[in-house]
Amino acid sequence: MGIFDPKPEHKFTFGLWTVGNRGRDPFGSEVRDTKTPAELVYLLSEVGAYGVNFHDNDLIPIDATPSEAKTIKRDFQKALDETGLVVPMATTNLFFDPVFKDGAFTSNDSRVRAYAFQKTMHAIDLGVEFGAKIIVFWGGREGVETDSSKNAIDSFKRTREALNFFCDYAIDNNYDLKFALEAKPNEPRGDLYNATTGHMLGFIETLDHPDMVGVNPETAHEHMSGLNFMHSVAQAWEAGKLFHIDLNDQYPGRYDQDLRFGSRDLKAAFYLVKFLEDVGYSGSRHFDAHAYRTEDYEGVKDFARGCMRTYLIFKEKAEQFNKDEEIQNLLKEINAENPTMDQYFGPYTPEKAKALKEQTFNREELSSRGLRYERLDQLTIDLLLGVR
Amino acid sequence: MGIFDPKPEHKFTFGLWTVGNRGRDPFGSEVRDTKTPAELVYLLSEVGAYGVNFHDNDLIPIDATPSEAKTIKRDFQKALDETGLVVPMATTNLFFDPVFKDGAFTSNDSRVRAYAFQKTMHAIDLGVEFGAKIIVFWGGREGVETDSSKNAIDSFKRTREALNFFCDYAIDNNYDLKFALEAKPNEPRGDLYNATTGHMLGFIETLDHPDMVGVNPETAHEHMSGLNFMHSVAQAWEAGKLFHIDLNDQYPGRYDQDLRFGSRDLKAAFYLVKFLEDVGYSGSRHFDAHAYRTEDYEGVKDFARGCMRTYLIFKEKAEQFNKDEEIQNLLKEINAENPTMDQYFGPYTPEKAKALKEQTFNREELSSRGLRYERLDQLTIDLLLGVR
Amino acid sequence: MGIFDPKPEHKFTFGLWTVGNRGRDPFGSEVRDTKTPAELVYLLSEVGAYGVNFHDNDLIPIDATPSEAKTIKRDFQKALDETGLVVPMATTNLFFDPVFKDGAFTSNDSRVRAYAFQKTMHAIDLGVEFGAKIIVFWGGREGVETDSSKNAIDSFKRTREALNFFCDYAIDNNYDLKFALEAKPNEPRGDLYNATTGHMLGFIETLDHPDMVGVNPETAHEHMSGLNFMHSVAQAWEAGKLFHIDLNDQYPGRYDQDLRFGSRDLKAAFYLVKFLEDVGYSGSRHFDAHAYRTEDYEGVKDFARGCMRTYLIFKEKAEQFNKDEEIQNLLKEINAENPTMDQYFGPYTPEKAKALKEQTFNREELSSRGLRYERLDQLTIDLLLGVR
Amino acid sequence: MGIFDPKPEHKFTFGLWTVGNRGRDPFGSEVRDTKTPAELVYLLSEVGAYGVNFHDNDLIPIDATPSEAKTIKRDFQKALDETGLVVPMATTNLFFDPVFKDGAFTSNDSRVRAYAFQKTMHAIDLGVEFGAKIIVFWGGREGVETDSSKNAIDSFKRTREALNFFCDYAIDNNYDLKFALEAKPNEPRGDLYNATTGHMLGFIETLDHPDMVGVNPETAHEHMSGLNFMHSVAQAWEAGKLFHIDLNDQYPGRYDQDLRFGSRDLKAAFYLVKFLEDVGYSGSRHFDAHAYRTEDYEGVKDFARGCMRTYLIFKEKAEQFNKDEEIQNLLKEINAENPTMDQYFGPYTPEKAKALKEQTFNREELSSRGLRYERLDQLTIDLLLGVR
Repeated sequence: MGIFDPKPEHKFTFGLWTVGNRGRDPFGSEVRDTKTPAELVYLLSEVGAYGVNFHDNDLIPIDATPSEAKTIKRDFQKALDETGLVVPMATTNLFFDPVFKDGAFTSNDSRVRAYAFQKTMHAIDLGVEFGAKIIVFWGGREGVETDSSKNAIDSFKRTREALNFFCDYAIDNNYDLKFALEAKPNEPRGDLYNATTGHMLGFIETLDHPDMVGVNPETAHEHMSGLNFMHSVAQAWEAGKLFHIDLNDQYPGRYDQDLRFGSRDLKAAFYLVKFLEDVGYSGSRHFDAHAYRTEDYEGVKDFARGCMRTYLIFKEKAEQFNKDEEIQNLLKEINAENPTMDQYFGPYTPEKAKALKEQTFNREELSSRGLRYERLDQLTIDLLLGVR
Repeated sequence: MGIFDPKPEHKFTFGLWTVGNRGRDPFGSEVRDTKTPAELVYLLSEVGAYGVNFHDNDLIPIDATPSEAKTIKRDFQKALDETGLVVPMATTNLFFDPVFKDGAFTSNDSRVRAYAFQKTMHAIDLGVEFGAKIIVFWGGREGVETDSSKNAIDSFKRTREALNFFCDYAIDNNYDLKFALEAKPNEPRGDLYNATTGHMLGFIETLDHPDMVGVNPETAHEHMSGLNFMHSVAQAWEAGKLFHIDLNDQYPGRYDQDLRFGSRDLKAAFYLVKFLEDVGYSGSRHFDAHAYRTEDYEGVKDFARGCMRTYLIFKEKAEQFNKDEEIQNLLKEINAENPTMDQYFGPYTPEKAKALKEQTFNREELSSRGLRYERLDQLTIDLLLGVR
Repeated sequence: MGIFDPKPEHKFTFGLWTVGNRGRDPFGSEVRDTKTPAELVYLLSEVGAYGVNFHDNDLIPIDATPSEAKTIKRDFQKALDETGLVVPMATTNLFFDPVFKDGAFTSNDSRVRAYAFQKTMHAIDLGVEFGAKIIVFWGGREGVETDSSKNAIDSFKRTREALNFFCDYAIDNNYDLKFALEAKPNEPRGDLYNATTGHMLGFIETLDHPDMVGVNPETAHEHMSGLNFMHSVAQAWEAGKLFHIDLNDQYPGRYDQDLRFGSRDLKAAFYLVKFLEDVGYSGSRHFDAHAYRTEDYEGVKDFARGCMRTYLIFKEKAEQFNKDEEIQNLLKEINAENPTMDQYFGPYTPEKAKALKEQTFNREELSSRGLRYERLDQLTIDLLLGVR
Repeated sequence: MGIFDPKPEHKFTFGLWTVGNRGRDPFGSEVRDTKTPAELVYLLSEVGAYGVNFHDNDLIPIDATPSEAKTIKRDFQKALDETGLVVPMATTNLFFDPVFKDGAFTSNDSRVRAYAFQKTMHAIDLGVEFGAKIIVFWGGREGVETDSSKNAIDSFKRTREALNFFCDYAIDNNYDLKFALEAKPNEPRGDLYNATTGHMLGFIETLDHPDMVGVNPETAHEHMSGLNFMHSVAQAWEAGKLFHIDLNDQYPGRYDQDLRFGSRDLKAAFYLVKFLEDVGYSGSRHFDAHAYRTEDYEGVKDFARGCMRTYLIFKEKAEQFNKDEEIQNLLKEINAENPTMDQYFGPYTPEKAKALKEQTFNREELSSRGLRYERLDQLTIDLLLGVR
């Protein structure tokens, strides 16, 4: 078995909706047949995944009868049992059905909001039933095309009310759960509220149970706005809020591409994997992506294998970066701390402030130092391209 | 005096660097002469501004002698006294001098970080000296071109250490101050940390004195990433964090344009002004923009007058929107709340959850309702274009 | 009848696919019922449109039997006759069916390319049958997700071969037709060939019958790349290539929004309308947009009426701009030509070059002139906002 | 000497303004000392460049006296002679001086236009004096901030008049020259005319001597709009218009970054190099980039070396791609042509059209074929990352 082959300890997971994506897009119809949830579990097992996640309606269609639901769940459980795949995360589809055309928690119609509460409780129950420990919230329709139509303040209040409700619901039911909020700037709505991982981090602090709630950053969603994804992930991690992650790829300033992980922006993917591995992130490496529309199900497997393989290649390169003597020496040189400055940092004291105000600095000397970042970056490129 | 003429109660302020901008850009040299801070105060008074803000080095050049500084401050104070302009905000230039080429608080060189602490304390003192109640932090160089060069976690920790230090410094000195953090996604660095107002809101909650620290959102910085500026402002406001605001204009996905307020994206500017006026924001309406490079100082005055005039036009239109019967009736219709749903909202109770789970919803009926948002938006456009 | 009500001479047209759009998007299913082509003609007549355009499969489903096609065409013709609507343009759907998943003319499969040729000939015949004088080509799938998959040179050659074939086909059949090529940068493919109107203009000059082929620029497609749409339209017009135009609206750097004309970027819409009216463009004002997904068919009518109304409001404002004394005086002042320079322009002569090389210029004097563009732009904003 | 070391046959060139860039940006002052043109030639020689290009004012400052100019040229020539570097291209700076604040050829002031003509003739003479065979035109200020200020049609006409003039000037002087037009969408102006390489290709066909004029596409300028650079280059090449190329790197939707070639978008850089090498492009590989502002002149050398090294690494990978059996087999499979279709392609005949109209196609069969593009792309990624 090769070093770039997936193993359970890598915690690679896929959504049912990813390998089950049928290739429909705004300008074209489905190109692949429907597969049942159970069939998708076997497919994921075949390619070496560790787990499978779902929206409520990926598993149980919105109009399924109780008896249909029962059969689907039985077959799905059987597939999990036979393959050993686990279900670390579940989420609620609050965007596909026309009832959510103006949002779920932020709908201007209180009946829609109530229905969204109901649907989410059922989705949480369903996730828990299959062992999920993380519930993701992606508010795909929580936004506007025209700001004349909704009061932004109300939308924040309504979203908060919903999240507070579900936290209490989980507590009330003794569910061992954390919630992870997923941001997106736009699409399918003109503008979505809480547009970035940063906005979500700010929002979480206004909730009743901030400790239960973190983020689920997604590469494509942050790249759509041209943001540095790793920076958002690092901020979430440093704040203790990186509860889950959605890996894929995306070129900025366009529609949501959900490309195979590491297939478009190699440099960004490297820094992300390096970050996750360096800090010891222990959650799922969840791929929220789908195969090109040119593919049949063999191509879907190629796609899924590629996501995991590329992750592992970058993992290996991250280790190489950490061991590379020239790179590490450059980093040491760059970060040379001046011990005479230590006295000024750490907690504030009036004395420290006074002394620091009187310290003399030689701006010109400090400025003239070349930082060797071009060299450092070229070594990184060499390493990425495998010529080092 | 016309209804679109600025008055002190509108709290229109400009930075010295805005009307004093000399038209230099990456591909061209200065086109306008230097004006002294005092001259700029008179210019701002002539166009009707309420206040003037500054970076430390807008007022006192970085290499000024104490005696030069004294003269400048005396002339500046005289201009303030004669014109009645106030100084509501001050900030620190931590980006122009080569010493900050790799950042200030996040520099890899501890001497640069210490110098940035020192410079910021002096800038705070200077702001306080002229009556500023808000200190803005824009970390123009706090970022990277290559993520090989800096540890993102360290950068967040270093930024936090700095903010904590200055909060304590202000407390220690009994300064009546609030701090406002300004986000920007990129430029002049490849990627800046805390890229959006949302990221700043998240970051603030990790500080020692979160109550002292809010945000200073800037139109252009949020538009650069294609984000809905009003949504970020609303989130900040709703969280009690809208301490200051930088108004200008910007087309997305390009260099920082700092255009005259309301001159590019009329619809976005309208919703922003409407939001600020509707919620009763009482802080400065600060314009962080500059005149086109084609202008002389008469053009600079045209620019400054235009910023304020357009704000007031939108203010008037916001009032018109709120009084427009057809619009308000549409909004009522859209927001028709269903009283039978009231029982499900508000704080969670197990009984509420149980009842809601058993509630029947008619998805098809809810979906089929047309929401009249096209009509509502067209009425808004008519109102904006003055044909209503 | 109001001045902003549509009349036939305004040549407002809509595609069947625009008012017939059912609100399906990548994250949601259809929200509106299907209407027949004939029903859509009556709807367009009700709102005051002049004409209706179609893709072959908007009118005749791809799998319709000959007898079904006959019935549909009869009903459609009856609706046209009863309403007086005309069909100025037709186009071919070469993107929806899975057969085109890797493109039509640029598919790597010669059978698909041949089928696309066949389908296009039939679509041209169908357009001609209903009186169309313009055939639009939008190559919605002519591109790649990975450049490993297609040879770009081959793709240009194949597209050329197709266009040459259809020009000859039209000539051979004595069709009174012009072809209009529509560019788009991406979506639904990762990158589409001939990404902008500019690329199309370059490409056209490499065809066998460049005189028969022009462009069909679309607002949204050019805005997606952040380009100034009017500039592209002006270049096409000045080159005699503006054969058709697709009007809608779009915020840059995101998915294809196809918003109601003039509903998002008011300033850009004004300059576009002003350009079309100033130069005397006499073709269709075709709206390639659709109603928000929140709407029912009443909302679709609001949408369609709004497109035309806003166009006419901007038309009125363009006339106002041209008559505004202060604006026109500013423009005269700005464009003050210096008669002593006249000798240097016009066709090259060696004497002219020699004399010009010896001419003295006072750079400083030329530079110091303020151009009053801030004032001019503010007058434009005032005019747009109806306060002038 | 390593396989990734530059040799003269690689035709690597740099502008004086690239390695001579002093690190000034919109928010910061210069960080590196000025070097003379001669010093920069020696620096380029040291790192292994083949040639050096210049704007007129890179070599001779705009206010230099004739005697100063003479000395500079003598020293520059000496450096060329001693190092063996050549000057394949020259260009005119029509953007830095305030006189061009509203453009050069499209200025609304006829004196500025005349001065721009004069300056360009001198710049052409200067380029020819040092052996340049290509004159690049980048109209850095040919655009607007507000479309109220300029007539777009006039701007196209004025640009055409200028280009026609210079073509005749070159012919008149028996200069062995070609002109290469460089597009950019925005920055430093709000919107620049002829925004993309495509627009330039269209524009060229309207000139008096289209054969003398081609394009100079630049990576960063096309990436700024989110376009696929290789596609634009391929279109130019296929039209016989790729006269020069500017290599660097850029993340989309932001300020002009001019990053080290191949340092940001590795995949795009690979396809570009592969294209240039596959088609046998024989012109300069010109790097129009500059070192990070964190660097001293050692860092500038690192930067310059990195541009060339990365190009050569990708060149090697392109050869590997072309020889890789699995990749080539996949490509053969993907491109399997169906010989029965051959009869339908090539020049149009009525018989061909008739036969093709009657051909039967099995859409379902054609659609169901999986194209293996995910596999092909993963093999490409493996190859790029050096694990293949």
